[in-house]
Amino acid sequence: MAHAKQVPVGIIGAGRIGRVHAEHLAFRIPQARLVAIADVSRDAAQACATANQVDAVYQDYHAILADDAVVAVVICSSTQSHAAIIAEAAAAGKHIFCEKPIDIDLASVDEALAAVRTAGVKLQVGFNRRFDPNFSRIHEAVSCGEIGEPHLLHIISRDPAPPPMNYLRDSGGLFLDMTIHDFDMARYLIGSEVKSVFAVGAVRIDPRIARAGDVDTAVITLEFDSGVLGTIENSRQAVYGYDQRVEVFGSKGMIHSENMTSQRTILSNGKGVHSASALNFFVARYAESYLAEMRAFLACIQEDTDPPVGVTGRPRRRSRPRV
Amino acid sequence: MAHAKQVPVGIIGAGRIGRVHAEHLAFRIPQARLVAIADVSRDAAQACATANQVDAVYQDYHAILADDAVVAVVICSSTQSHAAIIAEAAAAGKHIFCEKPIDIDLASVDEALAAVRTAGVKLQVGFNRRFDPNFSRIHEAVSCGEIGEPHLLHIISRDPAPPPMNYLRDSGGLFLDMTIHDFDMARYLIGSEVKSVFAVGAVRIDPRIARAGDVDTAVITLEFDSGVLGTIENSRQAVYGYDQRVEVFGSKGMIHSENMTSQRTILSNGKGVHSASALNFFVARYAESYLAEMRAFLACIQEDTDPPVGVTGRPRRRSRPRV
Amino acid sequence: MAHAKQVPVGIIGAGRIGRVHAEHLAFRIPQARLVAIADVSRDAAQACATANQVDAVYQDYHAILADDAVVAVVICSSTQSHAAIIAEAAAAGKHIFCEKPIDIDLASVDEALAAVRTAGVKLQVGFNRRFDPNFSRIHEAVSCGEIGEPHLLHIISRDPAPPPMNYLRDSGGLFLDMTIHDFDMARYLIGSEVKSVFAVGAVRIDPRIARAGDVDTAVITLEFDSGVLGTIENSRQAVYGYDQRVEVFGSKGMIHSENMTSQRTILSNGKGVHSASALNFFVARYAESYLAEMRAFLACIQEDTDPPVGVTGRPRRRSRPRV
Amino acid sequence: MAHAKQVPVGIIGAGRIGRVHAEHLAFRIPQARLVAIADVSRDAAQACATANQVDAVYQDYHAILADDAVVAVVICSSTQSHAAIIAEAAAAGKHIFCEKPIDIDLASVDEALAAVRTAGVKLQVGFNRRFDPNFSRIHEAVSCGEIGEPHLLHIISRDPAPPPMNYLRDSGGLFLDMTIHDFDMARYLIGSEVKSVFAVGAVRIDPRIARAGDVDTAVITLEFDSGVLGTIENSRQAVYGYDQRVEVFGSKGMIHSENMTSQRTILSNGKGVHSASALNFFVARYAESYLAEMRAFLACIQEDTDPPVGVTGRPRRRSRPRV
Repeated sequence: MAHAKQVPVGIIGAGRIGRVHAEHLAFRIPQARLVAIADVSRDAAQACATANQVDAVYQDYHAILADDAVVAVVICSSTQSHAAIIAEAAAAGKHIFCEKPIDIDLASVDEALAAVRTAGVKLQVGFNRRFDPNFSRIHEAVSCGEIGEPHLLHIISRDPAPPPMNYLRDSGGLFLDMTIHDFDMARYLIGSEVKSVFAVGAVRIDPRIARAGDVDTAVITLEFDSGVLGTIENSRQAVYGYDQRVEVFGSKGMIHSENMTSQRTILSNGKGVHSASALNFFVARYAESYLAEMRAFLACIQEDTDPPVGVTGRPRRRSRPRV
Repeated sequence: MAHAKQVPVGIIGAGRIGRVHAEHLAFRIPQARLVAIADVSRDAAQACATANQVDAVYQDYHAILADDAVVAVVICSSTQSHAAIIAEAAAAGKHIFCEKPIDIDLASVDEALAAVRTAGVKLQVGFNRRFDPNFSRIHEAVSCGEIGEPHLLHIISRDPAPPPMNYLRDSGGLFLDMTIHDFDMARYLIGSEVKSVFAVGAVRIDPRIARAGDVDTAVITLEFDSGVLGTIENSRQAVYGYDQRVEVFGSKGMIHSENMTSQRTILSNGKGVHSASALNFFVARYAESYLAEMRAFLACIQEDTDPPVGVTGRPRRRSRPRV
Repeated sequence: MAHAKQVPVGIIGAGRIGRVHAEHLAFRIPQARLVAIADVSRDAAQACATANQVDAVYQDYHAILADDAVVAVVICSSTQSHAAIIAEAAAAGKHIFCEKPIDIDLASVDEALAAVRTAGVKLQVGFNRRFDPNFSRIHEAVSCGEIGEPHLLHIISRDPAPPPMNYLRDSGGLFLDMTIHDFDMARYLIGSEVKSVFAVGAVRIDPRIARAGDVDTAVITLEFDSGVLGTIENSRQAVYGYDQRVEVFGSKGMIHSENMTSQRTILSNGKGVHSASALNFFVARYAESYLAEMRAFLACIQEDTDPPVGVTGRPRRRSRPRV
Repeated sequence: MAHAKQVPVGIIGAGRIGRVHAEHLAFRIPQARLVAIADVSRDAAQACATANQVDAVYQDYHAILADDAVVAVVICSSTQSHAAIIAEAAAAGKHIFCEKPIDIDLASVDEALAAVRTAGVKLQVGFNRRFDPNFSRIHEAVSCGEIGEPHLLHIISRDPAPPPMNYLRDSGGLFLDMTIHDFDMARYLIGSEVKSVFAVGAVRIDPRIARAGDVDTAVITLEFDSGVLGTIENSRQAVYGYDQRVEVFGSKGMIHSENMTSQRTILSNGKGVHSASALNFFVARYAESYLAEMRAFLACIQEDTDPPVGVTGRPRRRSRPRV
């Protein structure tokens, strides 16, 4: 029994993040109805469909684009396919949620955006961390002037462990693979574009990463148009867990976030005072943000507003300025 | 499209807590299938059914008990109906999850339990707080000996605001309505029965509560069989939010919990250092525990083990000693 | 080379707490000049005098009382001598700082106070914890109405380890020896007298304590005249250190204190998140309060105001109401 | 009455930091005896001498150097006089404690060090922050391998308010005046020399600072010989107080420090959860470190060991490797 106003959605790509979105669309977001799943692996598509009580299962995503009943698609396929699928989906008149990045080639991104604009559909990009309750609270404090004019930004973004070497070799490198989220966060929190970047990297964790031509540890300095100075710290391996913190310092105060934990007990014994490690890894740490970004995407379809991070083909009314 | 092994469940009572369980059974617990909803208010039943995509809607719960396809029922009706419905459901061969308390009359509780034992079904009582990640971590620390022999227990349990006077007049009083959870928590954490209770109460918040013959503020001292001493603090109104903390002190250490918050940002400004208020109210604070207790109920049906808090008619094998 | 207005002070009793006061009077409080030390042990007196550059050393404290140059005495002798020395010192016209308690016999206390009133001198009692920055901040919050009307008080007071059995046998028992500070703290923070006391005790730490007729673990419930309900938790042995915390809950909020530490580093590793233990023991934990109480005593002499905790023979002007 | 082994010390310069050292030497460090004070302002010298019960007061510090009874001098005069006085004091055979920096001209520093080496005296430089309990704990964790190999360092060093413009104009600029402590801290904590420095600065607080040719906000990136990457954040104005934090991240964990406060109460009310601001300013925040560095200086004289930060003319035995 379906809701009158539910938006029929298809998912393209049933890998790890695709399955997260599938469960949310199937069970957690009443405004959506998950109606179709496609994956180049028929088995992956079927497993995801079974788990989420979806009947339409395809190997070729074009079947989803061809289905007039589908109003929106969620693109979770491999990065190099994003731009092309966006263009096709836009041409088919579907609203689009696409995992980041759209592409690593700017021209391809521009083509995809042009297709979206021409088609007059909505495109939201999966920068989910903007929807984390910590970072959206910091964004609010900065944009409402609670800390005055921002002066300094510091982002700590450390993964618990390096990915497998074969993933890492195709990842595009630490700056594209990890820092991309932090670059987006920096722009989101400060509300200004970056005018200069200085980066130093090192291999501190695994010499194979050096042999792959990458670094595993990095510090990036940003200068923003607005005059704010920022730093980002990345590491591929924080043995104590997934370390995701942000601090913004301004003329009237400072706001920073601590890591989230599954519980807040504190054990005191003869060796000291002990509390819980950070949530580990992103599926747990950013669970709420994945749900919130998808809710926001559905809301912008139903209310015909702009996606909070992305573009709209023919914007009619805006809920708020895009960041 | 259903899972092969899903347990068909009916809900009796579609009030606030019934709706929480309904959503969990419908969307969050793959092992369950919510198939029927009954409420003395037809509208309440229908609304809950619509929201959770359930077809079978009844005013009279007997229709659920009569449905052979229903394997388990979740009783969320008013307290005074619990014991009778348990007996009927047991007689109908249904496994039972029942909100606390079973009854305020011990003889009625004993009759209900007898019916459960005779029927050989499982009964789990809704002491959800045992499933909160904080308190279950404290339970683990105590039962594993991490803090040695327990000596002292302190429970702080303060509601954000008093309930409406008409609720309060029928609530059975603060000790039955609020402290019941804390009494259960005390037994759960210490693993010993209470041999003496001393309580003082006061009206500090609203004189109408005094006129209703109740108190709004209380301190209870417990002596356990094992020699542990404990205190419980209750208030009907913590203006800063829902305050739910526990501390257990023992021969090798101490463990306590802090309140949970939706985010962990810290704002520093000229007036001091500021962080977020506690989650408010129980639907948010104990969201995870409601889900976890229902998962545990489903698991004990599927694996034929004892409910973690409750009884089994004819126990066959035990996952762990009942507390 | 001395300050013009320094108050010459003699110390009676050069035990542990006497040596703390001696160092403060000699080196940390410019308004005072430590001029004489007496102890029944000549060696103890001499060692304390040498360490603090004091020339006048006596076995018999009467020599200090007979010295017209001495304006104030600090009584740190054994408890049973307090009342008598107070009376003698008052008769000799000395202002008096006396360690707690004045006596365990009320009649003796009354006699000592009568002597003080007759002589027109000042008497301050060594309830140093009132001067701890945490507890004085809580006192301020309560008395200024920051938390509205107080409803509930909770005091945690746990020593790191039991004293030697021979000390313990003469200590007067846990309630007199340990809880005395907490009883004073309760009255100080709530600003109301206690109308009923209910206490339970247990022996959880050392059976020899039971054989000595004492308890090592206790919970005390207090009802105040003002309607506030309070609890005190005591233990002789917190293996994780000296645990000294207070919480006051009221109609407009709640204030509580955490333990003080020597530093605030936090270590995160594969086992969790670890921070420093509480300051251990009272000489470190309450260092600031010992200094502050003595400064307050000197100030009330120099400015002829009432001692913040104690009595004045002939009060002329009051800095603030005595608590 | 003096201790047999007390070291007679003279102070050169009775400004703010000179008075801090004077009080410590006079009253807090039994191994020292403060015997003489010199300041170009006779009044300043006299006031400091009076407060600390010192008889010998001079305008010309040469009188202290000429006094054979003086074993050690503490140089707190203006920066440009440091190197010359060090050379003179060394020639006079005095052990030397000198406030940082020795000089801003490397050749002058080298000459001063040469004089110290020739004379065979000890020279300790006033990098007091190394003696802060937080930073020395972090140093210990790093040097003992508790966090494994260090990878990343982050130092936050923000003053509560800019100094007066006339001070600022002669300060040598933010990097020399403020960051000098952080550069020392970076080397101290990582135990490796810096091989590259990248800095960006901005004027965010006061345009007069720009007109003086300085910046008030800065971010510095450091690459160490050992491969560690580090950042330092400076601001002249943190409106919430003196912000002094450090974080070191390594292969086995991470350690960071929070700001120190005078008390640890937490107020919860309808607006959130509030705690105390950081200690403000350096005299309070680093009180313990000033005392500890001077104790260390006295200890290295009495035990003939190397100063923990500085040089010894003719080292005989070493307590530990110099950092």
